[in-house]
Amino acid sequence: MPNTPQPAPEWHTTQWFNTDTPLTLESLRGNVVVLHAFQMLCPGCVLHGIPQAQRLAETFAGAPVKIIGLHTVFEHHQVMGPEALKVFLFEYRVRFPVGIDAPGDAGDPMPRTMKAYGFRGTPSIALIDAAGMLRAKYFGMPDDLTVGSAVGALVTEMEGSLPGLSPRPRREKAGAPSGNA
Amino acid sequence: MPNTPQPAPEWHTTQWFNTDTPLTLESLRGNVVVLHAFQMLCPGCVLHGIPQAQRLAETFAGAPVKIIGLHTVFEHHQVMGPEALKVFLFEYRVRFPVGIDAPGDAGDPMPRTMKAYGFRGTPSIALIDAAGMLRAKYFGMPDDLTVGSAVGALVTEMEGSLPGLSPRPRREKAGAPSGNA
Amino acid sequence: MPNTPQPAPEWHTTQWFNTDTPLTLESLRGNVVVLHAFQMLCPGCVLHGIPQAQRLAETFAGAPVKIIGLHTVFEHHQVMGPEALKVFLFEYRVRFPVGIDAPGDAGDPMPRTMKAYGFRGTPSIALIDAAGMLRAKYFGMPDDLTVGSAVGALVTEMEGSLPGLSPRPRREKAGAPSGNA
Amino acid sequence: MPNTPQPAPEWHTTQWFNTDTPLTLESLRGNVVVLHAFQMLCPGCVLHGIPQAQRLAETFAGAPVKIIGLHTVFEHHQVMGPEALKVFLFEYRVRFPVGIDAPGDAGDPMPRTMKAYGFRGTPSIALIDAAGMLRAKYFGMPDDLTVGSAVGALVTEMEGSLPGLSPRPRREKAGAPSGNA
Repeated sequence: MPNTPQPAPEWHTTQWFNTDTPLTLESLRGNVVVLHAFQMLCPGCVLHGIPQAQRLAETFAGAPVKIIGLHTVFEHHQVMGPEALKVFLFEYRVRFPVGIDAPGDAGDPMPRTMKAYGFRGTPSIALIDAAGMLRAKYFGMPDDLTVGSAVGALVTEMEGSLPGLSPRPRREKAGAPSGNA
Repeated sequence: MPNTPQPAPEWHTTQWFNTDTPLTLESLRGNVVVLHAFQMLCPGCVLHGIPQAQRLAETFAGAPVKIIGLHTVFEHHQVMGPEALKVFLFEYRVRFPVGIDAPGDAGDPMPRTMKAYGFRGTPSIALIDAAGMLRAKYFGMPDDLTVGSAVGALVTEMEGSLPGLSPRPRREKAGAPSGNA
Repeated sequence: MPNTPQPAPEWHTTQWFNTDTPLTLESLRGNVVVLHAFQMLCPGCVLHGIPQAQRLAETFAGAPVKIIGLHTVFEHHQVMGPEALKVFLFEYRVRFPVGIDAPGDAGDPMPRTMKAYGFRGTPSIALIDAAGMLRAKYFGMPDDLTVGSAVGALVTEMEGSLPGLSPRPRREKAGAPSGNA
Repeated sequence: MPNTPQPAPEWHTTQWFNTDTPLTLESLRGNVVVLHAFQMLCPGCVLHGIPQAQRLAETFAGAPVKIIGLHTVFEHHQVMGPEALKVFLFEYRVRFPVGIDAPGDAGDPMPRTMKAYGFRGTPSIALIDAAGMLRAKYFGMPDDLTVGSAVGALVTEMEGSLPGLSPRPRREKAGAPSGNA
C-alpha cells in the first residue's frame, strides 16, 4: 500500500445477492468495509477466502463493519454467471451481500471494479475505512491475525467499540479544569 | 470484562526464560502486552494457546506489542517444574519470554499472579494496554480474529502502526485555516 | 451393507474427463475400484470428498487401485453441466478419471448410476473389489483411516501388495516335507 | 523394510499404564499390533502421533488390532519419568496401554526396545502382524491412509473382518464338486 492512502474507487456492479437494494460504497460510509473479491470456482477462494469472510462477518456482527463480497470473474466467464453464483451462495451458506462486478471494456476479461482496485487475482481483500479511504489490500491467503488486527484498528480509529474489549478509559483533557473553581 | 477497566496487577514470578532480565509489567509500559497463561501439560495450551501466541509474536513483530508467557501451574506441580518447562520451551521452540508464576499462599495450589488476574484455568489470555490497564481476558480457545482484532485496536489507540496497514490520513484541525485567505 | 455382497451395478455415463476412452466397471476388473460420487457445487464434496479422493489416488498410485469420480448431479442441473465440470476439474487439479452420470428417467432428477447404487446424496463412496462385488458404501465424510483400511483390505484379498508394507512371509504348506527324513 | 520380514523383537519395559498386567508382544499373538513409540515432550508425537494412535484405537475398536504405546525416552530423561508420563496420559486422555521402555546399557541414552527395533527417533510406529512378524516401520508423521491401509491389510491376511466392510464372498474350492453327483 502507498504511504498516502487514496479514496477507494466506487464499485460498478450488475446484480446483487443477499441485499434488497444494490449497495454502493458511498452508502456504507461510516462503516469499516471488508471487500472480498472472489470467483466461485477458485479453490483458494472456496477453501480460504470465503470461510474467512464468513468468520469476519460473525466476529464483527456487533461492530460497525460490513463484509461485502464481489464476484470478480476474469476467466471461465461462461460457467460462473449469475445463476451459478446464486447456487454457490446458497450451497455454501454465504449470507453477506455479494455484488457481481461489471464487465470490463470490450475485449478485457477483467471486470471493472477489479481493475479499478488493481487486484492481481482472487481471492483478494480491500479494507476501506469509515471515511472511504483504501487502507489495505491483500492478495491470496492472509491469515486471520493479519486481517483481524487491521479491521480492529480501523474500527478503533473511528471510536467504534469491539465485542469483548472493554472501553478505553476516558482521559481528562489537558488543561481542562477538573474540579470546581 | 467490567465496563470500567482496572489497572492490570503486577506480576509475581520466580524465574524467567528467553530474557536476560526478569520482566515486570511496569517495565513494558508503552507496549500492548499479551499475557498468555499456560501449563506445559495442558492439551488446550499445547494445541491451541501456545501456537496462537507464537503466531501473535510473528504477526506483531514490528509493532509495539509484547507477547509474554506465564507458567501458571495449579495442578501436578511436581512434574511441571522449571527443568521440565525449560525442556518444553526448547522442544516447542517457544522464543518469547516466559515467567514462572510465584507460588500462592500456603495450601493454595493456585499461583499468585493467576489468582490476582482471576484466571479460571488454562489457557487464558489477558490483554493489557499501553497504559497498563487490563482491557480483555479470554479463557479457553478464543479464535485468531477475536484476539487479533483486539490487539489491533489497542495498538491503534496508542497511535501505533500495524504492519500492512497504511497510515491514517491526517485530518486537518477544525477551524484551522486550510488555504490562503 | 448387506452381509451378502452383491455385484456392483455397471455405470451409465454420458461423458468422461481425464481418460482417453470411456471407462466401464467391467474393464477395471482385477482392480479395487473407489467410486467417488460428487457434485461440483456440494461443499462437503469440495472440502472433504475430492481432497480425500486425491489423497487416495496418491497413496495407492503403485497398487491395483483405481480412483474414479462420478459426477452425480441431482439438483441445480443447469449450472453443473459438462463445461462447468471441466473448469472445476482443471481448477481443483483433479487428475483421476471422472464420468458424468447419465440422466435418470423422465422427471427423475436423480441420475441413473446414482440411483442404481442407492446413494443417498453427495459425497458418497462405493468400494468395489477386484471381482466386481460392491463391498462398502459411505455417505458423507468418512475419515481416512476408515476408507484407507477398507481399501487396504480389498487389495490384500486379491494378493496385491501395498506400498510400504513388506510382503507376507510364505507359509509352508501343511503336510509338505520340511526337512530331510 | 527388508523384503524378508523378521520376527518383531520382544519388548523390555519397566512399568505399564492403562493395563492391569504388563503386556508382552507374545501375549498379543493373534492380533495385529500397532506399536507407537513416543516421548511425552516431543511435539511431533503430541501433535500428530498420539492423536493418530487414538484415532486408530477408535477405528479398530471392533477388530483384532491392539494399539500399544511405548514411551521411548532417549533425551531429557530427568523430566519425562513415570510420574510425568502418568500426568501426560491423564491430561491427554490416552486410554490404550503404554509401557515404559527399559533403560539401555550403561552410557547409552537410547532405551532397549527402541534400539532393538532400530527406531530413528520419535514418533515411530511398528506394525506387527498376527504371527509376530515386523511388517512395517514409520518414522515421523505418516498419514492416516498409509497407516490405515496397512493395518487393514494385516487384519485381512488373518481372515479378520473390518468394521464397515461386508465380508468377502466365499469362493467355491477349485475341483470341489459343486452340485449333486
